[in-house]
Amino acid sequence: MNSPRLDQLLTRAALSRVFEPSDNVGLALVAAAGPVDALRVATGRVRAGADLSREVTEVLAAFGIPASGNSVASALERWAPRVQDLSPERDLATVQRLGGELLIPEDPRWPEALRGLELGMPLCLWTRGNLSRGIPELRRTAAVVGSRDSTGYGASAAGDIAAGLVTRGWTVVSGGAYGIDAQAHRAALATGGVEQIPTIAVMAGGVDRYYPAGNEDLLREVARCGLLLSEVPPGSSPTRWRFLQRNRIIAALGAVTVVVEARWRSGALNTAHHAAALGREVGAVPGSVYSANSAGCHRLLRDGSAVCVTDAAEVIELGSPIDAADGAAGTAHEGPRAVHDGLTIEDMLLLDALPLRTGSPVEKLASVAGLSVSSVRAGLARLELEDLAARDGQGKWRRSRT
Amino acid sequence: MNSPRLDQLLTRAALSRVFEPSDNVGLALVAAAGPVDALRVATGRVRAGADLSREVTEVLAAFGIPASGNSVASALERWAPRVQDLSPERDLATVQRLGGELLIPEDPRWPEALRGLELGMPLCLWTRGNLSRGIPELRRTAAVVGSRDSTGYGASAAGDIAAGLVTRGWTVVSGGAYGIDAQAHRAALATGGVEQIPTIAVMAGGVDRYYPAGNEDLLREVARCGLLLSEVPPGSSPTRWRFLQRNRIIAALGAVTVVVEARWRSGALNTAHHAAALGREVGAVPGSVYSANSAGCHRLLRDGSAVCVTDAAEVIELGSPIDAADGAAGTAHEGPRAVHDGLTIEDMLLLDALPLRTGSPVEKLASVAGLSVSSVRAGLARLELEDLAARDGQGKWRRSRT
Repeated sequence: MNSPRLDQLLTRAALSRVFEPSDNVGLALVAAAGPVDALRVATGRVRAGADLSREVTEVLAAFGIPASGNSVASALERWAPRVQDLSPERDLATVQRLGGELLIPEDPRWPEALRGLELGMPLCLWTRGNLSRGIPELRRTAAVVGSRDSTGYGASAAGDIAAGLVTRGWTVVSGGAYGIDAQAHRAALATGGVEQIPTIAVMAGGVDRYYPAGNEDLLREVARCGLLLSEVPPGSSPTRWRFLQRNRIIAALGAVTVVVEARWRSGALNTAHHAAALGREVGAVPGSVYSANSAGCHRLLRDGSAVCVTDAAEVIELGSPIDAADGAAGTAHEGPRAVHDGLTIEDMLLLDALPLRTGSPVEKLASVAGLSVSSVRAGLARLELEDLAARDGQGKWRRSRT
Repeated sequence: MNSPRLDQLLTRAALSRVFEPSDNVGLALVAAAGPVDALRVATGRVRAGADLSREVTEVLAAFGIPASGNSVASALERWAPRVQDLSPERDLATVQRLGGELLIPEDPRWPEALRGLELGMPLCLWTRGNLSRGIPELRRTAAVVGSRDSTGYGASAAGDIAAGLVTRGWTVVSGGAYGIDAQAHRAALATGGVEQIPTIAVMAGGVDRYYPAGNEDLLREVARCGLLLSEVPPGSSPTRWRFLQRNRIIAALGAVTVVVEARWRSGALNTAHHAAALGREVGAVPGSVYSANSAGCHRLLRDGSAVCVTDAAEVIELGSPIDAADGAAGTAHEGPRAVHDGLTIEDMLLLDALPLRTGSPVEKLASVAGLSVSSVRAGLARLELEDLAARDGQGKWRRSRT
């Protein structure tokens, strides 16, 4: 695949201006007729219904959209007000002036991960930042999302997980919002990322505006060291609808989506559901049962929508099941070896029966432990070797003092 | 089933003195030959092998135990030291003097829940406390277990869950240990329990001794208002082996086992595994990812061995899936209705497009929202009715100030 032609860029730039994200009629039209003809229909240069070829009509019908019916007609009506001041050249110039570019599915750098969205795949991605390292591959990206009103606990967890991911060569995708999102981006940036883009912020509005304003410095830094992405053109406001749709892109870019903190109702849960619908893994960070900010995470854990993750290693294990098979991720948790580890049941019974101070004769030990006298003798020899049993001058046995 | 006869009580009392908990040869012998003949074999009044009937030999073989082989021979050796000072009459008298009694499977009050343990079912239960209300039924008991070195967080969670369970008519089973166990018993006792026994402590040693000593007052109160149970006779020490075996009884008595706090390696996990092996539900209480005391709970959640539970209602829902079907348990979490709940997508797009201050004309709103002019007119009427949109003197629209 070669670099896309300017006309391809202009066509998709225009479509992204006319269609709201996830406009099903518009996207079906693009799938059915291709972007060029879709734009011709959308801009009224081809009248819908009568002039749509039979093939396009059939494909639209397959999406449940009657080409001559109300859906297309009412879509044309809603697109019309935006057609008037359509200027894709101006939008392309704007994003280039910001040091960004327009990425389209015809570009070899288009992230394959987004194809999982099928019809819901964005028409294009307006980007800002350094695309020279491309968009990271799915198998090394994780979405880290959560509440805007995070607690100190959530901020720590988000930061530690994001930093751990970047250290291990992963990229952290989030939404650039206050709270968990900001903390994830911040920790990813602070950790750097030599071989990979440390972090990507997917914006609900245009990449020309840093939203929310309080995160301006942070988002500026994401654009400098990482990437800002948006499916809506420069100048677009971040609306509720676009926030909800934006979440599907965050979910699609991550091999795993981790919800760090979320209330019972939270946009982060929406991202988690998108990830699950895409067949991606979902992780949730547990927290206090008394914290409303963890209630959404516990809800995901409880209904089986998410796996419990407590650190970056567990996120990576979740996002890369094959790597996990070597068991390396599990080693961090090996505790100290307990004194009775590896003892047979008989030796454990015997060890339990040994007094700590005044020694006991073998016959007494046999009765207390519930073992035969010969078993006790054999067991005492083993425990003595392990330095767990000691004999006194009268041939009585007790626990070793060590 | 009538009350058990004295000879039945004496037989099982003696067997529980000779056999350690979960002595597989001993239990197979009881299953094969019945308790009376098992005791005759164990005490050497019948020589194993030669004198065992063909039927018994066959049943033992079915358990993988050759009647004439090493297993029975070595079992006889280990039982022998305990046969000498066997005095079941004395043990029965001891427990009766403590206000308790011996409960055996031949008693109609024997908890059916324990039959799930199959061969591992205790030979008997030495009890202390008030048996007049019987042992609670499986469907209204929950085991609440956890670390001895619990945190303040774990203690609160254990207490709140136990209190909530007792309030709803459930019984809390635990192990009488320091930390989570103690907190669960304490909260259950404090909450009372009019129709049910509030709490049961299953001891690893005899019910004549309050162990650990620091919980003496608490266990005395459990014996007064609830029940102390043990499968080992009075005078028995709580050994490591008996602690591990005791856990299976706790798990078997609960419809659900809840682990409130547990380290990566913890006896509470052993109880959880027993519960899972019995096909009982297992719940784990989440906590801070920075708390070592929650690492075991997170481990259970992560590997799918436990369901995330955050309060008593969720424990009950887990332990009684049929009751949960009416959805009553979910209602507590319904949050306040958001302003955009129930709006159509079109109306949400329109609401997003409405300016907060200076009004916009319909045509501008159509372009911003990506809707047709007629849709905007219809939508504005709906939003005005909902008091979400307001019109000014010039026919321009903005968000309603409410």
